[in-house]
Amino acid sequence: MTTWVDGAAGSLFDIDNLPYGVFSRPGEEPRVGVRIGDLVLDLSPVAAAEMLDVHHVFQERSLNALMAEGRLVRESVRRWVTGLLSDGTERDLVEPHLVPLADVTLHLPVEVGDYVDFYASLDHATNVGRIFRPDGEPLLPNWRHLPVGYHGRSGTVVGSGTPVTRPQGQRKSPTDDTPTFGPSTRLDIEAELGFVVGTPSSIGEPVSYDDFADHVFGVVGLNDWSARDIQAWEYVPLGPFLGKSFATSVSRWVTPLEALDAAWVDVPGQDPTPLPYLRPGTGAGPARGLDIGVEVVLNGAVVSRPPYRTMYWSPAQLLAHLTVNGASVRTGDLYASGTISGPEAGQRGSFLELSWGGTEPFADGRTFLEDGDEVVLRYTAPGTAGGRIALGEVTGRVEPARE
Amino acid sequence: MTTWVDGAAGSLFDIDNLPYGVFSRPGEEPRVGVRIGDLVLDLSPVAAAEMLDVHHVFQERSLNALMAEGRLVRESVRRWVTGLLSDGTERDLVEPHLVPLADVTLHLPVEVGDYVDFYASLDHATNVGRIFRPDGEPLLPNWRHLPVGYHGRSGTVVGSGTPVTRPQGQRKSPTDDTPTFGPSTRLDIEAELGFVVGTPSSIGEPVSYDDFADHVFGVVGLNDWSARDIQAWEYVPLGPFLGKSFATSVSRWVTPLEALDAAWVDVPGQDPTPLPYLRPGTGAGPARGLDIGVEVVLNGAVVSRPPYRTMYWSPAQLLAHLTVNGASVRTGDLYASGTISGPEAGQRGSFLELSWGGTEPFADGRTFLEDGDEVVLRYTAPGTAGGRIALGEVTGRVEPARE
Repeated sequence: MTTWVDGAAGSLFDIDNLPYGVFSRPGEEPRVGVRIGDLVLDLSPVAAAEMLDVHHVFQERSLNALMAEGRLVRESVRRWVTGLLSDGTERDLVEPHLVPLADVTLHLPVEVGDYVDFYASLDHATNVGRIFRPDGEPLLPNWRHLPVGYHGRSGTVVGSGTPVTRPQGQRKSPTDDTPTFGPSTRLDIEAELGFVVGTPSSIGEPVSYDDFADHVFGVVGLNDWSARDIQAWEYVPLGPFLGKSFATSVSRWVTPLEALDAAWVDVPGQDPTPLPYLRPGTGAGPARGLDIGVEVVLNGAVVSRPPYRTMYWSPAQLLAHLTVNGASVRTGDLYASGTISGPEAGQRGSFLELSWGGTEPFADGRTFLEDGDEVVLRYTAPGTAGGRIALGEVTGRVEPARE
Repeated sequence: MTTWVDGAAGSLFDIDNLPYGVFSRPGEEPRVGVRIGDLVLDLSPVAAAEMLDVHHVFQERSLNALMAEGRLVRESVRRWVTGLLSDGTERDLVEPHLVPLADVTLHLPVEVGDYVDFYASLDHATNVGRIFRPDGEPLLPNWRHLPVGYHGRSGTVVGSGTPVTRPQGQRKSPTDDTPTFGPSTRLDIEAELGFVVGTPSSIGEPVSYDDFADHVFGVVGLNDWSARDIQAWEYVPLGPFLGKSFATSVSRWVTPLEALDAAWVDVPGQDPTPLPYLRPGTGAGPARGLDIGVEVVLNGAVVSRPPYRTMYWSPAQLLAHLTVNGASVRTGDLYASGTISGPEAGQRGSFLELSWGGTEPFADGRTFLEDGDEVVLRYTAPGTAGGRIALGEVTGRVEPARE
């Protein structure tokens, strides 16, 4: 399958990628587009011209209406778009609706329902345990039995490129008698992958491991900005709150699951064997993870390369766990992997780990984020055509705390 | 001020109460109403007839559009409704639009954005600490410095009366070697008060203590159903997740802040003095709580009477804390007090405390909830006319776990 779109073939946004986003041109309403090369295809007029049943979903300001249509529509829309961009006979119809990325504004692609963040990397959880409890067992007793997770704030999920203001709050170091108030001095990133729900489920009906692709629409890059000093003081016993809730950045492109068909790999191994609700159906083999490479770029230099394929808990296990108590998911719900860290020092997905709790400066003396720092998270995966595809990147610049 | 509506004067839903809800009659679309006595006033046709600027907000399926109009509209709509129901000259216009409660279905009144739950009762936090750490300090070091809170699941907030299916999940007792999977055996309630946001705020701009009434529209009753065995196994280190996310019940009526004007009282006292961002403006005196009485009714019998006026952290302090890191609030956001417990044994707002961790059965041998149990939370407060008003009640019956 080859695209006729100039400059797309062989790029990270070739015909086997085709992520969805929400874009607008100056003075026009936001609507749904698909990316090919450095262009956005404006789907709404093309779908109307071809009298697609679901053409109305492309006129919306978010992907939610498209995602709510379910897996079969997701797959058939992808086949249709693939045909448009590869079949030369469609070129006259389609080409006028290809807009250069440079001419559009990209918007937050999803109206987020609930946002859940997990803690699914064994290496990350082990590193954090070693940093905070150097004399104890690094992993807590529950960690290998269930994917630990918690709810985050969906109202402060922002699109890539949105500046992040350094948060203020209470923090107390072990040597202080009382807490003080002020800007966070340990501002951090967490390089993560996010999963966006398309098809909702009903309260009381768990989503099984095997039904993952029926409910999840696609994948986003995600940076779970974290203020470690605020988090450390507040988090017992009910978990992180203001240390995380000031901002969570997601990519402006949502990569549909089908673009990742070639990226599935077995998870590294789970010991003990998970309880049945966390397992694939009978005879299906081990849980499956994704071979997605991440780059953490600080002020233009790569400082870490976390490998998503080393994650302990798989995306389908996270969803099965999230719903096993009968909790429902809604279109637009977002759940994230937690920090992606691999076993090696150069594969850590947070500054907390890269600087080992602030004790080992890296990247020209950096421990935590400074005002003006820009972080870019880049993601690539094997594409179905044999090359690599890019997921949407996640960028953010740190602005000084409010006066 | 006296109402001409039959049966309302002297009731708990007299003219000084007037909570808002969303109702429908058979075959009709849900829309906004206000309760007086045992009747619902259908606001939309009356507002249209009187050519109210904001009449469209009453045709919506939730209170969000009304709440988003802000404090001045909230106050003026209340004055207008009070006039309609007390001024006899309006009776001919209004009376045809009063519908008996028995003839309507009530809906979830709010489209919930983010749901945050706090832990604001000193007596509750102390009881829980004593139950789980009998030999340690009952309160953790941060508790008196900040209102501990966490994000809950907004997608499973349900209206009063919705049955609650006993959740399943992992739990591990201290004597088990490995976790097991099955229905929760320690299903509990938490009697709480919830606050609903009307006017949104912007990311990066904290809401000060004094701006509480500019942002909060009103109050709901709330039952934060909790599976203590699931929660105990999962909650370290990131807090409660599946132990809470299966259901949170809220009242079908939202009591606007103005109906509680006579209920404000000083909080019992805060030591140490909170940091400045948690205090009222200069010269305003101590933080203010609400004198709302709660009754916990199990299968028809009152088993506890938690007094909201004994809460340590005030509603305005919770909102100031929630936003101090720059997190924004949206119309429809819901934040709750946490379990309301008073200093006496008969004032505890959870079965965990009433049965002291399951060791002291109460109410005919009950420790935790059994299938078929029905819990009703009732709330009353002093009204502005000298009597008492009722908030919306919160009911729920426990259904057996899924097969």
